[in-house]
Amino acid sequence: MPRIVLIGAGSVVFTKNLLGDILSSPALRSADIALHDIDPDRLATAERIARWTATALDATPMISTHLDRREALRGADFVVNTIQVGGARATQVDFDVPARFGLRYTIADTVGVGGVFRGLRTIPVVLGIARDMEEICPDAFLLNYTNPLAILVRAVSEATAIRVVGLCHSVFWTVDRLAEYLGLQRDEVDAASAGVNHHAFILSLEHRGRDLYPDLRAFVDAGRTPDDDLVRAQLFQRLGFYPTESSEHHAEYNPWYIGKSDAAGDAVERFHVPIGEYLDRVAHNLDEYAETKRMLEAGEPFEIERSGEYAATIAEAMTTGAPARIVVNAMNGGALIPNLEADACVEVPGLVDGLGVHPVAMGPLPLHLAAYIRGAVDMQGLTVRAALDRDRDAIGHAVMTDPIVQSHLTLDDAWRLTEAMIGAEAEWLPSWLGGAAAG
Amino acid sequence: MPRIVLIGAGSVVFTKNLLGDILSSPALRSADIALHDIDPDRLATAERIARWTATALDATPMISTHLDRREALRGADFVVNTIQVGGARATQVDFDVPARFGLRYTIADTVGVGGVFRGLRTIPVVLGIARDMEEICPDAFLLNYTNPLAILVRAVSEATAIRVVGLCHSVFWTVDRLAEYLGLQRDEVDAASAGVNHHAFILSLEHRGRDLYPDLRAFVDAGRTPDDDLVRAQLFQRLGFYPTESSEHHAEYNPWYIGKSDAAGDAVERFHVPIGEYLDRVAHNLDEYAETKRMLEAGEPFEIERSGEYAATIAEAMTTGAPARIVVNAMNGGALIPNLEADACVEVPGLVDGLGVHPVAMGPLPLHLAAYIRGAVDMQGLTVRAALDRDRDAIGHAVMTDPIVQSHLTLDDAWRLTEAMIGAEAEWLPSWLGGAAAG
Amino acid sequence: MPRIVLIGAGSVVFTKNLLGDILSSPALRSADIALHDIDPDRLATAERIARWTATALDATPMISTHLDRREALRGADFVVNTIQVGGARATQVDFDVPARFGLRYTIADTVGVGGVFRGLRTIPVVLGIARDMEEICPDAFLLNYTNPLAILVRAVSEATAIRVVGLCHSVFWTVDRLAEYLGLQRDEVDAASAGVNHHAFILSLEHRGRDLYPDLRAFVDAGRTPDDDLVRAQLFQRLGFYPTESSEHHAEYNPWYIGKSDAAGDAVERFHVPIGEYLDRVAHNLDEYAETKRMLEAGEPFEIERSGEYAATIAEAMTTGAPARIVVNAMNGGALIPNLEADACVEVPGLVDGLGVHPVAMGPLPLHLAAYIRGAVDMQGLTVRAALDRDRDAIGHAVMTDPIVQSHLTLDDAWRLTEAMIGAEAEWLPSWLGGAAAG
Amino acid sequence: MPRIVLIGAGSVVFTKNLLGDILSSPALRSADIALHDIDPDRLATAERIARWTATALDATPMISTHLDRREALRGADFVVNTIQVGGARATQVDFDVPARFGLRYTIADTVGVGGVFRGLRTIPVVLGIARDMEEICPDAFLLNYTNPLAILVRAVSEATAIRVVGLCHSVFWTVDRLAEYLGLQRDEVDAASAGVNHHAFILSLEHRGRDLYPDLRAFVDAGRTPDDDLVRAQLFQRLGFYPTESSEHHAEYNPWYIGKSDAAGDAVERFHVPIGEYLDRVAHNLDEYAETKRMLEAGEPFEIERSGEYAATIAEAMTTGAPARIVVNAMNGGALIPNLEADACVEVPGLVDGLGVHPVAMGPLPLHLAAYIRGAVDMQGLTVRAALDRDRDAIGHAVMTDPIVQSHLTLDDAWRLTEAMIGAEAEWLPSWLGGAAAG
Repeated sequence: MPRIVLIGAGSVVFTKNLLGDILSSPALRSADIALHDIDPDRLATAERIARWTATALDATPMISTHLDRREALRGADFVVNTIQVGGARATQVDFDVPARFGLRYTIADTVGVGGVFRGLRTIPVVLGIARDMEEICPDAFLLNYTNPLAILVRAVSEATAIRVVGLCHSVFWTVDRLAEYLGLQRDEVDAASAGVNHHAFILSLEHRGRDLYPDLRAFVDAGRTPDDDLVRAQLFQRLGFYPTESSEHHAEYNPWYIGKSDAAGDAVERFHVPIGEYLDRVAHNLDEYAETKRMLEAGEPFEIERSGEYAATIAEAMTTGAPARIVVNAMNGGALIPNLEADACVEVPGLVDGLGVHPVAMGPLPLHLAAYIRGAVDMQGLTVRAALDRDRDAIGHAVMTDPIVQSHLTLDDAWRLTEAMIGAEAEWLPSWLGGAAAG
Repeated sequence: MPRIVLIGAGSVVFTKNLLGDILSSPALRSADIALHDIDPDRLATAERIARWTATALDATPMISTHLDRREALRGADFVVNTIQVGGARATQVDFDVPARFGLRYTIADTVGVGGVFRGLRTIPVVLGIARDMEEICPDAFLLNYTNPLAILVRAVSEATAIRVVGLCHSVFWTVDRLAEYLGLQRDEVDAASAGVNHHAFILSLEHRGRDLYPDLRAFVDAGRTPDDDLVRAQLFQRLGFYPTESSEHHAEYNPWYIGKSDAAGDAVERFHVPIGEYLDRVAHNLDEYAETKRMLEAGEPFEIERSGEYAATIAEAMTTGAPARIVVNAMNGGALIPNLEADACVEVPGLVDGLGVHPVAMGPLPLHLAAYIRGAVDMQGLTVRAALDRDRDAIGHAVMTDPIVQSHLTLDDAWRLTEAMIGAEAEWLPSWLGGAAAG
Repeated sequence: MPRIVLIGAGSVVFTKNLLGDILSSPALRSADIALHDIDPDRLATAERIARWTATALDATPMISTHLDRREALRGADFVVNTIQVGGARATQVDFDVPARFGLRYTIADTVGVGGVFRGLRTIPVVLGIARDMEEICPDAFLLNYTNPLAILVRAVSEATAIRVVGLCHSVFWTVDRLAEYLGLQRDEVDAASAGVNHHAFILSLEHRGRDLYPDLRAFVDAGRTPDDDLVRAQLFQRLGFYPTESSEHHAEYNPWYIGKSDAAGDAVERFHVPIGEYLDRVAHNLDEYAETKRMLEAGEPFEIERSGEYAATIAEAMTTGAPARIVVNAMNGGALIPNLEADACVEVPGLVDGLGVHPVAMGPLPLHLAAYIRGAVDMQGLTVRAALDRDRDAIGHAVMTDPIVQSHLTLDDAWRLTEAMIGAEAEWLPSWLGGAAAG
Repeated sequence: MPRIVLIGAGSVVFTKNLLGDILSSPALRSADIALHDIDPDRLATAERIARWTATALDATPMISTHLDRREALRGADFVVNTIQVGGARATQVDFDVPARFGLRYTIADTVGVGGVFRGLRTIPVVLGIARDMEEICPDAFLLNYTNPLAILVRAVSEATAIRVVGLCHSVFWTVDRLAEYLGLQRDEVDAASAGVNHHAFILSLEHRGRDLYPDLRAFVDAGRTPDDDLVRAQLFQRLGFYPTESSEHHAEYNPWYIGKSDAAGDAVERFHVPIGEYLDRVAHNLDEYAETKRMLEAGEPFEIERSGEYAATIAEAMTTGAPARIVVNAMNGGALIPNLEADACVEVPGLVDGLGVHPVAMGPLPLHLAAYIRGAVDMQGLTVRAALDRDRDAIGHAVMTDPIVQSHLTLDDAWRLTEAMIGAEAEWLPSWLGGAAAG
């Protein structure tokens, strides 16, 4: 039975869902589950939800909890990373400091100023995990869910020998949404996607061999898109391929919405761009954690549904040898998507078999889609360079790639913003940046 | 229900096996099966075995037969190619003319002089099929089983817009054989392979996560390898990875066996190299065809077992959307195996899903394995260049890559052999080579 | 003696300078010079200045004039292209239509909306020249000076078999300017540059083996940069490498200046960005042409100095075999600058010898410089795709890459601007775009 | 004035020629020349010939001699490497041990068994030089003349940060020879070549723009090739491009001559293949050294002619900034010759300017030429892997690439030969191979 280690297990809802998937699998129902968190209260809650889930599913895992990370890693086959460095407070800074320069964001966890600094504060911690793995469980797979995902996979791949893949459900839920738009059953819809995480596009969309794009175009052109997906719908109209992730994310991935207006009015209003959305989610997560604790104490039941997280799919396929198809983030090598950088971390379909995860070579992206994506890839590369080479200038160069910064700031202000962020996030930044954290 | 067209259906044993696989699949049991052959007698036999198989499996396919290829292709979803150009007589020439120069071969259908000329006589015919497909069923997949496989996939990919993959069971049976050596159940053994068709290597071999190579090394070192696999066993000892295909093939893929001896004696004898093996198989196939006809007429039953041919796997996965893992031959693009030529046709694992066949990026081959393979890749490229560019010199250059020619002939004799072959195979060669065939 | 054909010879000042260079070379003083223009008056003036130059230099060229392009091309060794499609009027449209959307530009001939449409109206004409060359002088070199240079080299390379290089003096004059800043003799300064045309960077700058960048940094930091070069100086401070071309160009190549202000004031004013500069130059060129005619008629002398245009250098080196070093724009092939697109036209040093022009492999650009350049490369690729594939959407996608458009328009307005430009430039656009021109 | 260090200065004839070139250059006549050798007698002789040369050329260099290598390297701008590890005795072993297995060679210093072992004994010493340079003169260029050249450039490039180029006059003398065949002046002939060292081909050969290949073909076809160049002439007839280096080398670079015969007789005799040629040269070099000493003592004069060695050309061009064209061996990077391995050391034209040596991107080799070369590239890669990774198996894999071994040995004998060589050359091999040398 494989040993599956959850780093950041205190994200209890994710832990519940992931264990729901794992323990529903006949091949994994007796798996060895090791939970790690640095917060004892959250770790205790994670253990309770884990044991509740096992009982509810009639599964017989071995469950252990560890405040010591290295102890958790001992004998690991799979290490699932879901940590958040800096938590709610750091996220608040990611929004507040840019706001002083007049910049508004929706999510701020992937690219842009927020993505750069989430990267800078998270890279050293994740490298610490990977280096522990090199010592303790060098053959284990690191399955990373933490954002900024592409940056972290790239940093681990470049700086350590640990096998790592980045996992994200954004493609899964995009296809789900499109099936819903067209009134189709999700599992009858086949989709192929390629790009980088949160910046991929659906390249093919079929229902039993029939191309669905004409129907989808008719749906969008008829104005039937829900308000919360208008940004992606417009990008689809102009680019010809549907973007993955979500409209709230894409609103800050390009220069076309935030701070823009035309004869039809202000784009933020018209496209229902939810400025500050991620701050609401952070608050909601805290509430949800409190509610989960309350329910556990009250002995109230939870709902368990297979969530389709790929960590369970990978563990199952590698254990049984039965092939599975996932979406995976892995180093490009110039091979998976030849017209993106060789050292980019790209998102493509992947085959899982008994030997591991094998990303699929997808060929070049249509040129205009590549053009939409390149800024994100450069931002990722420059953030990794900054962190690994301790290159302060590269932070400014990464901030220069932010389309919101580009649309609204001068070059001097972009630099002032960079320095202001370094100061405001010192608590979580490494010492070479004058920060108080390790690394 | 997909329409599956068998070109060269008169290879009745293959047709029986393939239909056995297809009609055993619940998703394909009512498939539309179109049989084509240019030989009316063989086509009639193929139809009878097809109908017998359907009945035996309680399946309800639509079966049609076509002497006219274009008629067969109408509405095709999958076109399975198993033709042999020149048949038994051309194969005889492939052995006889080199023998006049003192050269001995075992199979002669993949590389070397025989591979070059099998390529030259087959490329125009297969391009004819692909060009018919461009007109009649441009979205259909061409599933090519015919040898020289890599040459044909490369020629079709370069000269037409048809999606083509090459399918071969040599990896499958290699893993089967190795499992047998180690006393393991075949379906518990996981293997990853990479290279070019008939020249791939098993890069990983595991039983439930345990590396099997130490056991296999012990098996070989103990002298337990059967006589018919001594060539691959020695290559494994020297190269560290087990070659796919078979010992009789590899004996002519390198300079180390045929015509060689050392203190231990003559290598052909010592390694049980079956010179002329393919001629025996050709004779056996003719006998088998006669026996099949006799059994059909006598109403005797056949055995049906799933043969694991990937054509059925592909049709099933693309029809149902359930993912499958196969081994596939596809254009490298510099991406699948970065240290082989970008325009090589390489053999790697592949993911099949509802949208198609997606080859997996395998990373660079160990350098000494790449070195073992390169001559074959160049031979394939030069043969394709000769055929597509009508470049007679390139035929000589292709013959120059043959390790048997290299070991035994002068450069002048290599050229004389080339010209002798062009003369002797004129019946099947295109007119630009002075031949009597089309193209 | 080589035959050198000047297409667009009516750009009389350029013609004078180029002939000054050519006829000063001992190896070329009797060259066969063929002048072509579609404007008889300009052609006549070009001939007079050519003859005047020959006399002044005591050279003995054969000079011919041709209103018929194909006649001019007969027997050509080198074809120098300096045409302008649409002339002053089209340039005015390039500024006026975007201005209706609130967009300001300085030069508008390389990237952005103006670059896209200059490309669309020029590509068919230059392809016409190259196709004439394929028929009439297939071995001749096409030396292209016309803008948008990278787009034209790329279109000719992709659509024809003609050998083409793009030539531009922007690197030459950048190094000249930097030498002047540092009080050094220009010919004692060694510089290596790489990038794409007008978007290259000086990667090394040395005086007799001594790195000049510390001195240049001190010069800039001391505020000694002249007003007309403040944009490049700031980019140098932030990026660490000096950009080539000029400050007026770079002001519109990125989002940092036009329409931007910060606490220090409006960036256009502060950095002395000359909005509409190119319109002034166009007017000046018309004046200069009139003045040249007047001087010729009055028999007044001109000044002749070697201008360092590389067309003469190439003709001389290929004629004599003596090697020369130039800066050249050529197809990347993934090789010259590996981290720019394989099908980009890049600008790198080049070796000229008796056999031709050989671009030098420069290795990857520093990542943040590549990030600065990529938008231009995508704009070039999308414009070429639009023109060659007759893809109207690709025009919008090309306009989407313009940093000025990105900073100031919504996506809908970007599309409206695109359509407005197609309408306003119909006179010079090909018929597939509803235009009145050929192609 | 640059400091030029000669490592292995005791190769006195080379030292005389190189100093003749350097001191003839006005820019270098006062250069700082540091001579190093480990043999005091040879070093003293080198100094005497150096001083004699300076006087003869009326030059005023600073000449110093150093038995201590690190002292010689102090302040170096250029380090010229011409060492021979193992000298005449090791060369004798390179011939004698293979001879015991029936193998005959001509030169044995580039590829094949001799090349592998020359590589294994020389790599550690040259890496020692490069590592000293990293400490003492990290910005100096290493100009390597020592064989096996490609292997050494590759090892230094991979294992150190020193800038290194490999220099060889084989292309120069090939062009010289072809000009002579055609009765032309050498400096009027333009040639472009590409490949790997000793395995390059003349891709273009022109006299003032006229293709010379038809004339050369006529020359060869008429049987006018001298006896000492018959191998290359036949390769030219079959491959269509003239090989560089010489016939005696090529005779052992392919399987077509040594040990081969056909109706026309034994190929070694017919093509005048000088078996053991290099042993004669080694003996001759010893005689020449003795004669040089005698002449110095007798005060007899030497002849000085510019030899065209590129080390002097590089030093001159980098000192003056005047561009020069050389032929250079440098790491491919996938860029210089895209269809050879990315980590091959390839031989292409190069531009030298004030900043350094810039290899030219030559595009893909014709496929059949690449096929001729690949075995050598793999042999080089495997030898480097063996030395840097201390991988004994890789030595066997390198020996497996030798066409002479391939033609004549079984796989077991190839392995026995490998082990016999390791034993016989222990004196010069590193300790990880059981040898007595450092590294």
